[in-house]
Amino acid sequence: MATIEELMNVDFSDASNEMFTPVGISNRHLHLNRADMDKLFGEGAELTNIKDLTQPGQYACKEMVTIVGPKGSLEKVRILGPLRKETQIELAQTDARKIGIKAPLRNSGDLEGTPGCILIGPKGYLVLEQGCIVARPHIHLHTTDGERLGIKDKEVVDVFFKTVKPTLMCGITARVHPQFAFDMHIDTDEANAMQVKDGDKGLIIKRG
Amino acid sequence: MATIEELMNVDFSDASNEMFTPVGISNRHLHLNRADMDKLFGEGAELTNIKDLTQPGQYACKEMVTIVGPKGSLEKVRILGPLRKETQIELAQTDARKIGIKAPLRNSGDLEGTPGCILIGPKGYLVLEQGCIVARPHIHLHTTDGERLGIKDKEVVDVFFKTVKPTLMCGITARVHPQFAFDMHIDTDEANAMQVKDGDKGLIIKRG
Repeated sequence: MATIEELMNVDFSDASNEMFTPVGISNRHLHLNRADMDKLFGEGAELTNIKDLTQPGQYACKEMVTIVGPKGSLEKVRILGPLRKETQIELAQTDARKIGIKAPLRNSGDLEGTPGCILIGPKGYLVLEQGCIVARPHIHLHTTDGERLGIKDKEVVDVFFKTVKPTLMCGITARVHPQFAFDMHIDTDEANAMQVKDGDKGLIIKRG
Repeated sequence: MATIEELMNVDFSDASNEMFTPVGISNRHLHLNRADMDKLFGEGAELTNIKDLTQPGQYACKEMVTIVGPKGSLEKVRILGPLRKETQIELAQTDARKIGIKAPLRNSGDLEGTPGCILIGPKGYLVLEQGCIVARPHIHLHTTDGERLGIKDKEVVDVFFKTVKPTLMCGITARVHPQFAFDMHIDTDEANAMQVKDGDKGLIIKRG
């Protein structure tokens, strides 16, 4: 178990240290199911891939919507494809506060009891009963990365960022799967608070 | 020097532990000098105290302005009194990005080379050449607090927050002065990222 002093002294330019994770910063976004896609963009409308994301098969779409909460709205919020079983809105805490939605900190897909919102698309709007979350930061690892680093699926680790505002994020869950690419996902609040930029890396610290 | 495991096990309900600091969350705000107050609110205008802040002599004012940057504006930004020698705009990184101002991470008062902005008040506007910063998080301690906790002015410590997103902020400067009240100041990005709320506390960890 590392001490804080040891963390501060880690050489972040050491290319031989395998415990560094790439970092991706997620802006607010949403995932849609088929029925909600139909309501917002028209019956049978399809998503348009404009940029592949790090995770295989995932992509940013041309399509955007407006998210409305009790206190305001967020315009031009991007949809990530492909379509999913459940519509899910991922906000940073700053976004959620701005529009008055008490989005809880949740893992992706864990939507029971979460607040809803209104979504407005070019062909219609809909009132969601649930689906708004602040996504827990997490690390994706391919199975080979997990084996190489000795990290199991659902293992909890800590991650240190050595920016101008050095920060240790504690209790980050690793997810290991043959369809994942090695990447840690943080949101804009976390990136802005730690002054982490795209391309920065975090040091994974195993527990125990 | 504590290990991460020891941090996670600290009892945050232990009232006998003196190393807990109160935490105040600073929303974006600004301080004005006399000349800029005159331009924005009229010759000889005075600030109106609507709420005393934790630090003795400091207060939130009724007066607000609009801050304009190259990419947008922030309306109803509150002025903190009293007037100072230099006008200073304190933004969270999220705010600064939104309006396109590259505000550097600085200590209060360290304004050389910082970007400016446009301020709009009820009686006029002005173009600032400098003054926009993202304020470094810091801890204020009264001299008696410093003596009690063994913390000197300008000493660098680490602070642990045991929220739903446990986080260690590293390299926080303590400022000890007979006119200070014991309080750690973080901004809205840090509070939102860590899910720290007003009234929460941080654990100060001394180095060495």
